[in-house]
Amino acid sequence: MELCLKVIPNRSKYAQIKRCYCEKGHDGRCEEFPYLKHLAHHFKQVANKIKRDATKTTGAAWKSENAGPNRIDRWVMLLSDEELEQYGIKMMALKQTVVAKLREKAASYEDCMAVAAKLTWIVYQMLDAPEAPENIKKHLEACFGKFQAGATKCIVCKMPLSFRSFSQAKRGRAKIETAHMNPRIHNANNVGFAHRECNIAQGDKTLDEFYTWIAQILERVQSSTS
Amino acid sequence: MELCLKVIPNRSKYAQIKRCYCEKGHDGRCEEFPYLKHLAHHFKQVANKIKRDATKTTGAAWKSENAGPNRIDRWVMLLSDEELEQYGIKMMALKQTVVAKLREKAASYEDCMAVAAKLTWIVYQMLDAPEAPENIKKHLEACFGKFQAGATKCIVCKMPLSFRSFSQAKRGRAKIETAHMNPRIHNANNVGFAHRECNIAQGDKTLDEFYTWIAQILERVQSSTS
Ligand SMILES: [Zn+2]
Ligand SMILES: [Zn+2]
Ligand SMILES: [Zn+2]
Ligand SMILES: [Zn+2]
Repeated sequence: MELCLKVIPNRSKYAQIKRCYCEKGHDGRCEEFPYLKHLAHHFKQVANKIKRDATKTTGAAWKSENAGPNRIDRWVMLLSDEELEQYGIKMMALKQTVVAKLREKAASYEDCMAVAAKLTWIVYQMLDAPEAPENIKKHLEACFGKFQAGATKCIVCKMPLSFRSFSQAKRGRAKIETAHMNPRIHNANNVGFAHRECNIAQGDKTLDEFYTWIAQILERVQSSTS
Repeated sequence: MELCLKVIPNRSKYAQIKRCYCEKGHDGRCEEFPYLKHLAHHFKQVANKIKRDATKTTGAAWKSENAGPNRIDRWVMLLSDEELEQYGIKMMALKQTVVAKLREKAASYEDCMAVAAKLTWIVYQMLDAPEAPENIKKHLEACFGKFQAGATKCIVCKMPLSFRSFSQAKRGRAKIETAHMNPRIHNANNVGFAHRECNIAQGDKTLDEFYTWIAQILERVQSSTS
């Protein structure tokens, strides 16, 4: 699908260009997330989660003492230390481990926007997901292919995921999270959803590394008990 | 081995009885952790870790907003809400999830002391571990059996663990952690060490549950790719 991509005026303090992701030649005003309108109206929490996970670094790990900037646009982390200093972000003042984590989450604006659309496409294919309005379905299917109802699985454990999990929590944490087949790459081909426990178990391994790792664990367990 | 178990006067604000864990009829003054003397002298960090992990609840999870008491003696968590209130700990004021985590870490003083001794016994059997002085070796072997040099493995992944891992960190976190075969039981039969990543992957599952879980993941991955 050809996109409008006109620049949308915005007041981001990082002088970020934002673009319109409606179909080229669309009616009405330009919008960054046209395909999220339906979810934003009926399931605001889910729409906000998609936007946030697609575009922001996570913050939890440095909420404590060595706090770096909490939840920042991923593309801002593509800027150099010098450029960031102009925006009041002093990378040199942060712990090296925090810097590494922030830099690892860096992604271009274009990749982040593609991730948001891909996650929305995935959400609509969850068990118990609401039905997408025809125009949104058409838009997302033009980008990523036909919807298969209920086809969405946890990218780690391959169990079907239910849309209801978005409103379920375990010990105060959401039950499903945005996840990456390779945790160091944030683009549309590499994202999906996973159970929180699966995402945590995967850690900073790629999925391939994770499966190899657990297969080796099971081999050692078997040989140590036999 | 018969232990002295005389009460050691102490100034714990929770009116806790502390006891001597030297051999019965020992010379010199009574001590809680006689078998830790050698590590405390040469590897203070390791000795402190053993004491702390054996006797204290962990704090990381509630360091943030809903802060409960940070690192508290595990046996204090056996007291009722009313008793705790007398010590200025208001369990009712904490989030339910925090209370659950704290209560889950509860263990008797006796179990905690046995855990400390067991962990010390395990440490001396790590690869590259220092040699235990004869009296300490004798004490620990009387409690838990003969040392096997280099026999200590990660309780999760069954890879040999090196004493050097105690001074290694990954992203600012220690590489090995005290771990539990069943995360809800804190006693000498149920503890060991694990790689941080292994401990995290195990999460709140028992080891048996964890192995079953990862075996099922691998089955689903194989059937979804074949
Ligand atoms: Zn437009
Ligand atoms: Zn899963
Ligand atoms: Zn004594
Ligand atoms: Zn391990």
